[in-house]
Amino acid sequence: MRFSKTFLKTLRGAPKDEIARNGALLTRAGYIHKEMAGVYDYLPLGLKVIENIKNIIRDELNKLGCEEVLMSSLQNPEPWEKTGRFSDQEVDIWFKTELSSGGVLGLAPTHEEPITELLKSYVSSYRDLPLYIYQFQTKFRNELRAKSGILRGREFLMKDLYSFHASEADLDRFYAEVENAYRRIFARLGIGDSTFETFASGGIFSKYSHEFQTFLPVGEDTVYYNADKSIVLNKEVLNEEVLRDLGVSRKELSETTAAEVGNIFKLKFKYSEPLGLKYIDEENSQKTVYMGCYGIGVSRLMGVIAEKFADEKGLVWPESVAPFKYYLVGIGENGVQAAEKFYASHEHETFYDDRDVRPGEKFADSELIGLPYRIVFSDKTLAENAAELTSRQTGKTELIKISDL
Amino acid sequence: MRFSKTFLKTLRGAPKDEIARNGALLTRAGYIHKEMAGVYDYLPLGLKVIENIKNIIRDELNKLGCEEVLMSSLQNPEPWEKTGRFSDQEVDIWFKTELSSGGVLGLAPTHEEPITELLKSYVSSYRDLPLYIYQFQTKFRNELRAKSGILRGREFLMKDLYSFHASEADLDRFYAEVENAYRRIFARLGIGDSTFETFASGGIFSKYSHEFQTFLPVGEDTVYYNADKSIVLNKEVLNEEVLRDLGVSRKELSETTAAEVGNIFKLKFKYSEPLGLKYIDEENSQKTVYMGCYGIGVSRLMGVIAEKFADEKGLVWPESVAPFKYYLVGIGENGVQAAEKFYASHEHETFYDDRDVRPGEKFADSELIGLPYRIVFSDKTLAENAAELTSRQTGKTELIKISDL
Repeated sequence: MRFSKTFLKTLRGAPKDEIARNGALLTRAGYIHKEMAGVYDYLPLGLKVIENIKNIIRDELNKLGCEEVLMSSLQNPEPWEKTGRFSDQEVDIWFKTELSSGGVLGLAPTHEEPITELLKSYVSSYRDLPLYIYQFQTKFRNELRAKSGILRGREFLMKDLYSFHASEADLDRFYAEVENAYRRIFARLGIGDSTFETFASGGIFSKYSHEFQTFLPVGEDTVYYNADKSIVLNKEVLNEEVLRDLGVSRKELSETTAAEVGNIFKLKFKYSEPLGLKYIDEENSQKTVYMGCYGIGVSRLMGVIAEKFADEKGLVWPESVAPFKYYLVGIGENGVQAAEKFYASHEHETFYDDRDVRPGEKFADSELIGLPYRIVFSDKTLAENAAELTSRQTGKTELIKISDL
Repeated sequence: MRFSKTFLKTLRGAPKDEIARNGALLTRAGYIHKEMAGVYDYLPLGLKVIENIKNIIRDELNKLGCEEVLMSSLQNPEPWEKTGRFSDQEVDIWFKTELSSGGVLGLAPTHEEPITELLKSYVSSYRDLPLYIYQFQTKFRNELRAKSGILRGREFLMKDLYSFHASEADLDRFYAEVENAYRRIFARLGIGDSTFETFASGGIFSKYSHEFQTFLPVGEDTVYYNADKSIVLNKEVLNEEVLRDLGVSRKELSETTAAEVGNIFKLKFKYSEPLGLKYIDEENSQKTVYMGCYGIGVSRLMGVIAEKFADEKGLVWPESVAPFKYYLVGIGENGVQAAEKFYASHEHETFYDDRDVRPGEKFADSELIGLPYRIVFSDKTLAENAAELTSRQTGKTELIKISDL
């Protein structure tokens, strides 16, 4: 991408009400645009980050045999009423709206009810199971407050996966597969070292669920951890019984803040029972389908990664999610000529700052935008048949022979 | 994709209230699932068709230098109030909702207002223009009736492109480029022969806009055409003045029905003036930005293509949008072995019916699902070192040597 051809600019400031660092930096660097608190547009660079995150998740889920769909945002109340989740007393983050032909609809904050209903057309026998179905979808949550940039959205992108099984053992097996897939996903996203599977409350059918929490100063969750025992638990389950279960004492735990980037949940019959998702087993008797659900916050992840690695100069993207690998600058006539040549053969991985501005402004913008490597061609580097390569992460600069680029 | 591994099945019937052929066929063949009138889920095969359509559009728009973004669905009323489009009296298809922290929001039926507001952060000088920005977005329209399957959605997928210019001449230049890009898009989608640029009403600033109408028995629009003069016009502009402009008489026109698959519109100052999108020109004076907008109905196109080519046996997809190129069947032990071998090397383009059902059921499903080619391996074909290749469109079957596959 040529900087001169995109509508993007780096901006001097973010909106006054943007108090979150991720929101402010991503706005100034031209990745997002704030529509209102918790509601953002994704600009070309930001959309590329989102697509990179999605592709890593998609790749790992497809390896497990998961199938991708796209469900609707508009929700008929009926199935949600059967599970008791349509009333604002039970679920207080609904956006609701009215059909002009009459009747209330909701905007889906999650999709357990409609996917369970949908599967009633497709599951009848044990031979149809197991099934794993996921989507990348815009979710809506009517949050009272949303002041954390894209860490907490009223409209946000999520990956949600639902699994369907004939037995609890098979649910357990797949749950463990997803745990491993999630570890691979967060590792590939560059936050594997700081993202931990965390005990959280389980609900009706399971004692625990698991969250994946990325330790982060601005995270909205409080978690307790013991590094030696590899135990992390959410504050919500910090009680005597849980400490006994996990074999750890309160004194052995340290407190920190974290951002929840994923969660996995054994739903068992929570939705399949009230909605009547049944199958016929080998003995010809009718059974209820076991379910699990597995979320990852896609747009939140973009904010978490931004917060995690940013420094005083701007964003610092891991290579796997960066919109481009290289930020390219040519200085002087010969430098520009060499940069053009490099760009011609590396267009897809290069953001080329071909603007008619002084090098200092390009260098400052390269640091704000945060691509992994800056490449500079100038008379000085060309005298050595080389380019200057600077790592955004380490700040280290080296001369690389053009033939080695 | 293996039929035995997907949750999809072909269904005997569609929902009772599904009176549109596209909705019924796409449901029975496992492409979509109806949530309510005008609201559908896209299942794995359907999502592939949608992605294929998007990729053709994206490819042609990127060639024009257009940049992709993703804007929000939740809309702040403010800019829409400035253009007079937030009141239900002016625009009667809004879905509206309320923020729990107070205030009404809308669900975007289109995005002229927010894109114009967004560009105020990025456009200040004539040097910033022209710009072309598009997105693929879920749009919401609170239709009183929605009985045409995915031809008329309350929640649907659209591509919308907005262009920004310093002069009317430049808007005219780009408008003509989009006209050509649209012709290429509809040609690549397999409906070029039946899709016509159609005169439609222009609004405040332009005498005409242009629609792209695909002639279709179940289309909701009425158009008049003269094939010899290559003139098509929407019923809404059939009056003496327009006939005079176009140099055609009422008698020379035939009437037919059509589905609008795209529209292009010279907005000029319609949104930039009330919202204050200005730039400084070469003479340092402030001018208003010229705008154009260009839509394509992505999910509607899937329905139009389904309606256009379907026959009494089921769907018939053009190769460019088909979810897979081949529907693969192996008959008998040797046939299955040869099919497995073919599948191993053509996985990405093949839907492999590896179910344990009789060949007749596979053949019927292959016709319902409508992939371009059915490939059958059996003892009979293998005796000739060949496979049987049947075109879904022509029904013609031929033996193809395995080495030529």
